[in-house]
Amino acid sequence: MESIIVLKIGGNVIDNPSALEAVLRDFAAWRSPKILVHGGGKIANNLMEKLGIMPKMVEGRRITDRETLDVVTMVYAGLINKNMVATLQSHACNAIGLTGADANLIPAIKRPVKDIDYGFVGDLNPCCISADTLANLIKAGLVPVMAPVTHDRTGLLLNTNADTIASSIAIALAKIFRVQLVFCFEKNGVLRDPDDEQSVIDFIDEALYRQYKEEGIITAGMIPKLDNAFAALQSGVDEVRLCSPEGLKAGLEGGTIVRTHAKF
Amino acid sequence: MESIIVLKIGGNVIDNPSALEAVLRDFAAWRSPKILVHGGGKIANNLMEKLGIMPKMVEGRRITDRETLDVVTMVYAGLINKNMVATLQSHACNAIGLTGADANLIPAIKRPVKDIDYGFVGDLNPCCISADTLANLIKAGLVPVMAPVTHDRTGLLLNTNADTIASSIAIALAKIFRVQLVFCFEKNGVLRDPDDEQSVIDFIDEALYRQYKEEGIITAGMIPKLDNAFAALQSGVDEVRLCSPEGLKAGLEGGTIVRTHAKF
Repeated sequence: MESIIVLKIGGNVIDNPSALEAVLRDFAAWRSPKILVHGGGKIANNLMEKLGIMPKMVEGRRITDRETLDVVTMVYAGLINKNMVATLQSHACNAIGLTGADANLIPAIKRPVKDIDYGFVGDLNPCCISADTLANLIKAGLVPVMAPVTHDRTGLLLNTNADTIASSIAIALAKIFRVQLVFCFEKNGVLRDPDDEQSVIDFIDEALYRQYKEEGIITAGMIPKLDNAFAALQSGVDEVRLCSPEGLKAGLEGGTIVRTHAKF
Repeated sequence: MESIIVLKIGGNVIDNPSALEAVLRDFAAWRSPKILVHGGGKIANNLMEKLGIMPKMVEGRRITDRETLDVVTMVYAGLINKNMVATLQSHACNAIGLTGADANLIPAIKRPVKDIDYGFVGDLNPCCISADTLANLIKAGLVPVMAPVTHDRTGLLLNTNADTIASSIAIALAKIFRVQLVFCFEKNGVLRDPDDEQSVIDFIDEALYRQYKEEGIITAGMIPKLDNAFAALQSGVDEVRLCSPEGLKAGLEGGTIVRTHAKF
């Protein structure tokens, strides 16, 4: 089974032009088949501010109204996505920038209204991802660069969480490839001491995860990320890695590796 | 040789939501392989105005500075392109929205500075278009929707004339397909009397074009469009059609047909 790397880069990387340039250069150099999934960062907020669009909040939750959706579509699918594609192309990486609407790659549903109406936000099921279409693009030598926008098949675009897109793509592709899912964020990995970037935990499996949570070593902020990682592993993804841009260099050897069980 | 239709829709159609919806519905229904190329319309100007960006003009020519390029990228490659894709998907047309940077489809060069520095504007040569990649996407059942943005392979996006993209794609694909190039614009076709929308000239070949120009029937505004059409025909495109959104219905029978010679 051929291997593939699904790399998700977060807003902190996108907001830092030199970090982003370094990440794209490292990503371009990887020889393995690969997909890049990017988040948004502050550019959309900055544009909303310039346009006088106030962020809509309900009970502390961010709402995607029509104006916000348009800004998200412009910034994520246009400005950020296409500039990344152009940069990757300059590093001889045959990138193709896509949303979940393109080639119907990621159909989603508008989040149902329960207590809160989140507006134009998409929820998705990995089963619905057009894994074969994505695999065919990759097998043709293309490198998909995915913006966090999906569609509902009735003509509506939907703002969608980039971590969810990355893990769902990883799960969907696990039928076809041996998938390594990499989350590149502002920390060097999962840390024993949140204030010490050198205290990276190299490896976590399910038993260690339970133990670290009991010992209070892994707390609040990291738990959703690790729950998400284990969910991907339980759905067929081979390995998850959490690391900083530094960890992406050459051998992709930095950060924290997450697996269901230790390799023997 | 398989046939393909390259449809270019202009700003006037894009600025009219109900006309656009009708065009996309008609386009989605065509059974032939097809490509859509879209221009920009007024949305980019409106956004620039809201952002307080003054259009830069030199000697009456519009200049694409960095701020304008970012707006063009957001509006053309993001907002317009992805909403068209979502609408086409809702009509069961497997659209994929792309710029010339994606998959290196349309490498261009930044227009050389002679009398005027046009800024981030791309000029292109049909020979450089990645016709095989485009043809492979089409043969996989996808319908490319092209935004008028290209790249220079050094990481720079470039604002590029949509008519030029449409005719260059048509020429590049003429090696692989029998190509019909359709320009959909605000007129019913080439008119004998510019004030009478019913005075459409059904057919023009090179001899008739010379004759109509001599007689003063075809003047200023239409000459660049027809010169462009004959250039495409001379480079292997089978037929060019100029028509209004009405002309796109069912049989694609309205408007003016342009060919080098009459069919016998």
